[in-house]
Amino acid sequence: MHSFTQYTPTRIVFGKETEKQTGQLAKQCGASRVFVVYGGGSVVRSGLLDRVTASLEEAGLTYKALGGVKPNPRLSFARQAVEMSKEFGSDFVLAVGGGSVIDTAKAVAHGTANPDTDIWDFWSRKKTVEKSMPVGVVLTLAAAGSETSDSAVLTNEETQIKRGLSTDFNRPAFAVMNPELTYTLPKYQVGCGIVDIMMHTLDRYFTPTENNELTDEIAEGLLRTVIRNGAAAIKDSHDYNAMSEIMWAGSLSHNGLTGLGAEKDFAVHQLGHELSAKFDIAHGASLSAVWGAWAQYVYQEKPQRFVQYAERVWGIEEKDCSKAAEEAIKKTVAYFASLDMPTCFSEAEEIGIKTEEELKKMADGCSYGGTRSIGSFKVCDKDDIFEIYKLANK
Amino acid sequence: MHSFTQYTPTRIVFGKETEKQTGQLAKQCGASRVFVVYGGGSVVRSGLLDRVTASLEEAGLTYKALGGVKPNPRLSFARQAVEMSKEFGSDFVLAVGGGSVIDTAKAVAHGTANPDTDIWDFWSRKKTVEKSMPVGVVLTLAAAGSETSDSAVLTNEETQIKRGLSTDFNRPAFAVMNPELTYTLPKYQVGCGIVDIMMHTLDRYFTPTENNELTDEIAEGLLRTVIRNGAAAIKDSHDYNAMSEIMWAGSLSHNGLTGLGAEKDFAVHQLGHELSAKFDIAHGASLSAVWGAWAQYVYQEKPQRFVQYAERVWGIEEKDCSKAAEEAIKKTVAYFASLDMPTCFSEAEEIGIKTEEELKKMADGCSYGGTRSIGSFKVCDKDDIFEIYKLANK
Repeated sequence: MHSFTQYTPTRIVFGKETEKQTGQLAKQCGASRVFVVYGGGSVVRSGLLDRVTASLEEAGLTYKALGGVKPNPRLSFARQAVEMSKEFGSDFVLAVGGGSVIDTAKAVAHGTANPDTDIWDFWSRKKTVEKSMPVGVVLTLAAAGSETSDSAVLTNEETQIKRGLSTDFNRPAFAVMNPELTYTLPKYQVGCGIVDIMMHTLDRYFTPTENNELTDEIAEGLLRTVIRNGAAAIKDSHDYNAMSEIMWAGSLSHNGLTGLGAEKDFAVHQLGHELSAKFDIAHGASLSAVWGAWAQYVYQEKPQRFVQYAERVWGIEEKDCSKAAEEAIKKTVAYFASLDMPTCFSEAEEIGIKTEEELKKMADGCSYGGTRSIGSFKVCDKDDIFEIYKLANK
Repeated sequence: MHSFTQYTPTRIVFGKETEKQTGQLAKQCGASRVFVVYGGGSVVRSGLLDRVTASLEEAGLTYKALGGVKPNPRLSFARQAVEMSKEFGSDFVLAVGGGSVIDTAKAVAHGTANPDTDIWDFWSRKKTVEKSMPVGVVLTLAAAGSETSDSAVLTNEETQIKRGLSTDFNRPAFAVMNPELTYTLPKYQVGCGIVDIMMHTLDRYFTPTENNELTDEIAEGLLRTVIRNGAAAIKDSHDYNAMSEIMWAGSLSHNGLTGLGAEKDFAVHQLGHELSAKFDIAHGASLSAVWGAWAQYVYQEKPQRFVQYAERVWGIEEKDCSKAAEEAIKKTVAYFASLDMPTCFSEAEEIGIKTEEELKKMADGCSYGGTRSIGSFKVCDKDDIFEIYKLANK
């Protein structure tokens, strides 16, 4: 087990009708002027936004709400939200939505607390976040884990660059998690969420680190739980138990727990970010479209790890190492397909089959022009990335 | 899954030589005058106390240190420490030790922050903790989980009453966890720690709540990890991997994670507290001495739960429900015995065989004079408690 630090200060309030506590929770965090961020019209149509703002009012808090966050949240929108938040004089940011809304809220908090800094400076590593404002979350989508994670992703549309930022200041102060709020999600979004949740653990689980038993056990248990309940949730998004398991798994999968003490990989996330930035494909779909190709390309690096995955997560009893690994990859890819998620480029209508020239360009983007490699299970440089994209290009 | 809240703000700093960061960590919490609490002479002899106080000095902090905390920490000592801390004007309390030291530090923090209140008023539920001071931990013993938990236990020697107090104010600000600091523990303490860690999860796992898959998976994975690594640790307390797994499991086993979404039981802890208060037996030993009797007495209440435990934790493949449950109980008790822990009263030299009159008195004490029942898997009143003590009295 490697040394690690873990800091998960987010107060989780999980269960039915918990959104009614939002105002009190914000007040306990010292909020007085709350800047509320949300996405499309569904939180308005469902009445959730009204319930949440009523709860803020009941707690005696003033608020200003801004809707319009898009998936793969845009820098331009976040910048605009920062300006509005500064003008409003907010001291607290509340996200009502999923990962994109939460990530935007984090950006607004950093931008408001650092009025003289352009937020992209934080995401492009020009500056370090040294202060911010508290962020609260009312979660409507189990997927990104941003409600507990230390990360936030923004896409700079001008340059088509998508970047993640990790800092303790990204940890929300509280997260209200009512699984019923996810009942009305389209099947596609449920599927994307399940893939995203699995990937936050898979991208930690496939690690060069050995002898990390408790973390492995938790990761494997989480994957089994998501696989079982994902199959139920995709059939019936009103299954409270299934949606609860997935929602809680979403938070634990990206708060750090499933990778503590081990080197992280996260190559698949990087491969997917490039696809999202270029083709505006949903995050979960970008990951399922490339995971099988990645796994196929890297598993020989340390097949024993894939054998453990095969045995413990999929119950595969196969003595031959390579066969067990390949069987586990096949099962994982088939599971993604059962969720109607794309498992290669042709199955993702936003991407489609690419020319070799295009694939090279993508590998160039993902490797920051050949200046970085990705992953740790197998360290992948620009050429490796090109090979993986080629395998996914079917 | 039931509704739940979870709040685990403790910053975990895990790995070799992490105690050197203590001063900086305290400083980041706003400390200037640190009241240091520790137990016996081992932290002095090993040089740990010097390393920690040097780190405080390096960070520019003033400190005052008080040793002498005993296992099953005493109210009288805690009261005395509170007075010293108030006199010193401390704004931060640092525990260097295990559960008893940490629980004492929590009491000192509450007492110092509430100078006009006798701390026992908090433990006896006369008053509610509404403010406190931050507590930091340098952990030297994996067992109680107090480094992340919201609870603290004190024993009132005058009345022989042992009481736990749960409040968010009991969550430490940080915990420095270096597994090497546990290398020199006597075998008996390692054994007590392993039992205590298992029991924090077992007392959550045996619940009347059903359909709680992720929490079950985590609980079962943690138990398997502790059982495997406990066997290694008891053979060689210098096994870094084994001691690491146990140390991290100790924190996760009592920070709430392994019981979220389910009703807790904790009957065995209550049964054990009575033994510790009356006979001053170590906490872990008090639990192993009574768990088998408790399990035997309650398992028919819901044998299916014990079958799941048998299958998933002990790998028992037995179709007959009662046989599987009894086999799992037998294996658990045998495991405690393999750690040289007592599994009944005669094996605990502090207790020994009791008369029926004495057992009745103990049941009276444990049920607060028949005014409360304990547990939820099976709700046990004074008569049930008497029956369980009778079963353990061999």
